[in-house]
Amino acid sequence: MSGSKKTAQASLEAMYRVFTVAEAPDSALSRIDQLISRNLAGFLQDHIVATEKDLSEVEKDFADPNIPDKPMFVSEQAQFLLDKLVANSVHTASPSFVGHMTSALPYFMLPLSKIMIALNQNLVKTETSKAFTPLERQVLGMLHRLVYKKDGGFYRARMHDAHHALGAMTSGGTLANITALWVARNHAFPAEGSFRGIHREGLFRALRYYGHEGAAILVSRRGHYSLRKAADVLGLGRDALIAVDTDEDNRILEDDLRNKCLELQRQRIRILAIVGIAGTTETGHVDPLDTLADVAREFNAHFHVDAAWGGPTLFSRQYAPLLRGIEQADSVTFDAHKQLYVPMGAGLVLFKDPTLVRAIEHHAQYIIRKGSKDLGSTTLEGSRPGMAMLIHSGLRIIGREGYELLINQGIEKACAFADMIDQHSHFELISKPELNILTYRFAPPDALQALSQADQRQREKINAHLNRITKFLQKTQRERGKAFVSRTRLEPPRYDSYPCVVFRVVLANPLTTLGILNEILREQQALAGEPAIESEMTALKRTVDEVLNASAGAS
Amino acid sequence: MSGSKKTAQASLEAMYRVFTVAEAPDSALSRIDQLISRNLAGFLQDHIVATEKDLSEVEKDFADPNIPDKPMFVSEQAQFLLDKLVANSVHTASPSFVGHMTSALPYFMLPLSKIMIALNQNLVKTETSKAFTPLERQVLGMLHRLVYKKDGGFYRARMHDAHHALGAMTSGGTLANITALWVARNHAFPAEGSFRGIHREGLFRALRYYGHEGAAILVSRRGHYSLRKAADVLGLGRDALIAVDTDEDNRILEDDLRNKCLELQRQRIRILAIVGIAGTTETGHVDPLDTLADVAREFNAHFHVDAAWGGPTLFSRQYAPLLRGIEQADSVTFDAHKQLYVPMGAGLVLFKDPTLVRAIEHHAQYIIRKGSKDLGSTTLEGSRPGMAMLIHSGLRIIGREGYELLINQGIEKACAFADMIDQHSHFELISKPELNILTYRFAPPDALQALSQADQRQREKINAHLNRITKFLQKTQRERGKAFVSRTRLEPPRYDSYPCVVFRVVLANPLTTLGILNEILREQQALAGEPAIESEMTALKRTVDEVLNASAGAS
Repeated sequence: MSGSKKTAQASLEAMYRVFTVAEAPDSALSRIDQLISRNLAGFLQDHIVATEKDLSEVEKDFADPNIPDKPMFVSEQAQFLLDKLVANSVHTASPSFVGHMTSALPYFMLPLSKIMIALNQNLVKTETSKAFTPLERQVLGMLHRLVYKKDGGFYRARMHDAHHALGAMTSGGTLANITALWVARNHAFPAEGSFRGIHREGLFRALRYYGHEGAAILVSRRGHYSLRKAADVLGLGRDALIAVDTDEDNRILEDDLRNKCLELQRQRIRILAIVGIAGTTETGHVDPLDTLADVAREFNAHFHVDAAWGGPTLFSRQYAPLLRGIEQADSVTFDAHKQLYVPMGAGLVLFKDPTLVRAIEHHAQYIIRKGSKDLGSTTLEGSRPGMAMLIHSGLRIIGREGYELLINQGIEKACAFADMIDQHSHFELISKPELNILTYRFAPPDALQALSQADQRQREKINAHLNRITKFLQKTQRERGKAFVSRTRLEPPRYDSYPCVVFRVVLANPLTTLGILNEILREQQALAGEPAIESEMTALKRTVDEVLNASAGAS
Repeated sequence: MSGSKKTAQASLEAMYRVFTVAEAPDSALSRIDQLISRNLAGFLQDHIVATEKDLSEVEKDFADPNIPDKPMFVSEQAQFLLDKLVANSVHTASPSFVGHMTSALPYFMLPLSKIMIALNQNLVKTETSKAFTPLERQVLGMLHRLVYKKDGGFYRARMHDAHHALGAMTSGGTLANITALWVARNHAFPAEGSFRGIHREGLFRALRYYGHEGAAILVSRRGHYSLRKAADVLGLGRDALIAVDTDEDNRILEDDLRNKCLELQRQRIRILAIVGIAGTTETGHVDPLDTLADVAREFNAHFHVDAAWGGPTLFSRQYAPLLRGIEQADSVTFDAHKQLYVPMGAGLVLFKDPTLVRAIEHHAQYIIRKGSKDLGSTTLEGSRPGMAMLIHSGLRIIGREGYELLINQGIEKACAFADMIDQHSHFELISKPELNILTYRFAPPDALQALSQADQRQREKINAHLNRITKFLQKTQRERGKAFVSRTRLEPPRYDSYPCVVFRVVLANPLTTLGILNEILREQQALAGEPAIESEMTALKRTVDEVLNASAGAS
C-alpha cells in the first residue's frame, strides 16, 4: 500500500467511526447531553447570556463562507456552539419572555425527541416509516374528533383507509394554511366537460373555462400574513386576499364581509374561501365562526378556520364555546408547536370531509403509489420527520384535562394582567384578552386625558409620541435581557384607526406568574425615565399640555 | 378552599411540574435516553423487530380516535412507544437497508439535536432565533460558495445583509423545488406599466398582460414528482410540467428539449424554467447541466438544478466534474437530510443572484419587518426549527475531506456492485451507476438469451413475467426483514421503453459492505425458489422455451 493510499484508508476508517461509535461518556458533548437531561431549565439559564449582544457583533462568529477542508474535533465544535450560538440565542422557555408564541417544553419532549431522531423515519411513505404512518393517522383522527366530534364508526371506516385523509401534517401553520387553500382552489375548479381540472390545466384555463375574472380569499384584516403568502404561491396574487374590517375587538365585521362578497360576485370573481380566525396572532381574538360558516355557504365558498393559535382552546370545557362554529369549517389549521407544547416544526390541517384532499392527491412510481397508505400523496412536503410521535405523546401524557388546565390558566392570567394594566397609571390596555393574548402601551395619565379631549390632528400627534416611546421601551427591555414582550401595530377605532404601536403579551407559559408580569410593567415604567428617551417624553408633555391648556381655556 | 378547588389546584401544580422537573435518572425514559447515547446502533438493533408485521396489524395499536381525558404516566407512554412504535418502525440506519435515501447518522447528530430542541428557537425572525439567524446565513453562504465559488468580497457584502438572501432553508427538497419555481414564476412576470406584478395580480392577469397562452416548466422524464406538485401548487397545472425524453443513461435529450421549447414558443407558452437533475431519484444520473444552461439562456428561462441527491458530489475533487455547469444555475436544490447526513427535515435552495428572492419577499407588522434580517421574509414556511445548526456542525466536524471520502466510497461501491451484478447469472443491471445509485432486476440466463432473440410481443411477455417476479422478490425480502432494496419502474430503450420493474439500490451508508450486497443477491436468488412464486417461474420458463425453441428451429 502506498503512503497516500494508507492515509486515505486511515481517514476512511476514521469516517466510519463517526457512524458507529458513541460519544465518550466524559466528553464535552456527553456532559452537555446529560446536563440537559438532568436540568433543562438550569442549562438554559446558565448558558444563554441575558444581556443582548448586537447582531452585527454576533455575525462576526459566523462570517466565514468556507467549508473547512479538514475535520474538526466534535468537542471543539461543541464548545464553539456553547460559546457562540447557545450563549447568544433566545431564552424562549423563560417565564418572563412573554412576547412570542414559543413557550417552555414539557421535560419529556426532550428524550422523546431523541428517540424520534435516532429512528430517523421518513413519513412520506410507509416503506420508510412503518408504524409511524398509523400513528400519524391516529393523531390526525384524535384532533379531527376534537374539532368535528364524528361518531366512532366514522373513524373506524376512515382513519386508516388508503382513500381517505382526515388531515395533513406539515412543518407548521403556514404550510397548513397553504395546503387548505390549495385544496379549496383545486376543489373550486374541478374537471368538467372538456376541462380536465385546475390541478392539470392550471388557473388560467380554469378561470377561462368557468368564465370568471379572478378568484379571491376573504379574511379579516387581522389575518395571518401566511394567507397573503398562500395567495401569492397559489397564483391568485396577493391582492386576491381581501382584508375585511374588524370591530373594536378585532373580530371580522359580518356586514363588511357580505358587502365585499357581493361586490366580488358583481365583478365575476370566484370566492374561493372565507377564512375565520380562532385566535388572531396579534390580539388572540376569535371571529364569529358560526356566522362565517353561514356566509361561506351562501357564497358557495370553502370555509377555512385558522386555529393555529386558538385550536387547543377546544380542550377546555369552559372556553371551548368561544370557538362555536369551528365544526362547520371545511378545513382547520392547528399548530402543534404552539399550544400543544411540541418542539418547533409541527403543524397540521384537518379536513371535515376526508375525501377533500383528493383534489391535491399525487402519485409516483417508486413511492406513494396509488392505493398505498403513504401519507406523502396528500401533503405539500415530501420527506418529513416523525413529529406526530411527539403530538401523540403530548395528547396522552398531558391528556385532555391537562391541556384544559393549561388553557384555562393562560386565559385567566391574561384577564388578571389586563386588570393590572387597567389599574396602572402609566399603561393603556389596547386589546382586551379573549384568549391568552393582550396588547397594551405606555400612556401616562395626562396623555390619556389629553387624548380624550383632543381633536383628530392632536390625537395623531400624541399617538405618534406614544408610538416612539412604546417602541423604545420594548426594544430596550429586550436588550437588557430580563424580560421580553413583543410589539406590533394596531389601528384602534377609538383613535380613528391611527396605527398605534403596542406591546404584545402571549401567556402560554404556565410558569409565568402575576408577579413576573408586574415586574415587567415596573421595568417598562422605569425605562421611560432613561435619558435616551427624555427628549421624546418632553415633546409628549408639551403636546399634552397644549391640549389640556386649550381645553381648560375653552371650558 | 372547597374540595374540587383543591383538586384543581393540585392538578395545576402537577402540570407545572411537567415543565420544571427532569426525568428521574432511573426512569424508563432516562434509561432509553442513556442507552441511545451510549450505543445508538445497539438500541436500534435491539428494539426494532426484524420481521415485518402486517400494517393492518400495526394499525390496531393506533385505532382509538379519542384523546384520553386523564393524564398518563410518562413511563407508560415510553413503554408503549418502545413496544408498539419503535418495534415496528424501519431500521433506516441498517447497512443492509439500501433501498432508500435515508442513511445512518453520525453519532454526534443526536446530542447536537438535543441542544437544538432544548433551545427551541424559531428561525422565522431574529427575535426568536438571535445567533441562529447569522448561523443559518453562514450555512447558506458555505453551500453557495461550494456551488458558485464567488470571491470573498461577494460573501462579505451579502451573506449577512438584510437585502440579500443567498438561499432559503426548507424542511426538505420538495419545498426547495417549489420555492425555486415560485421565484422563477414571479420573476418571469414582473411589474411593468399598468401591471403590478404577478405576486400581486396573479397568474391569470400576468398571462393576459404579457400575452401568453400559458407557462411551462421542462424537465426530463426522470424528474422528481415534487416538480409536478410544484406546477400544481403554483397554479400552472401539472400538465405544464413537460417531460423530456432521456437517453439509455437516463439523461435528458437535448434535441427533444429544444424541439419541445420551440413548440411551446409557437404556442405562445412562456417557458418559465428548465430543470436539470444532478442525481435522479431513481437512477442517480446527472443531466448535461452545461448544455441545459445554454438552452435556458436561449429561451430566456430560469435554470434550476435539482441536486437534492447529487449536490454533495461537489465535495469530491474526483467526481465534482460530473456536475459541470451547476454553477450556471439560477437556483439549486440541496437536501441536507440526504448526503449531508443530517436528521430528517432539512433542505435548502441556493440562488446565484442573491437579489432574486425579492420576487417572493413578504413582510408583516409584528415580525419580518422591512429592513430586518429576519429570514422568514423569503421562505415558504413561517416558523421553522434551527436545523441549520446541524448542517453547520456536519460541515465543520466532517469537513470537506470527510464528505469527499463518503461520496467517493459510495460511488466506488456502486461500481463494484454493478460489476457483481453483471457477473451474476441471475440478475441484469438496468441502469449503470454514475453516482451511488443503480437499478437491476431478476433475470435468469435463459430469459436474457430469449430477450435478445425475441420479437417485441414476446419481449413484452417475458418482461411482464420478470416484473412480477422482481416485485415478489422485493416485497418478500422486505417482509423477511434481513435486507431492503426498493423498487421502481423504468422504461429502458433496449426493451422498447416497456415499463420494467427494477430493484433500486442507494449506497450512501458507509457501513454497507460488498459482503452485505453479495448477501442481498444471494437471498433474492434463494427467494426465487419459494413456492409462492413457483407458478410464475414456470410460466416464465414456458415463454422463454417457446422463444428459444422457435429461434433454434428457425436457425
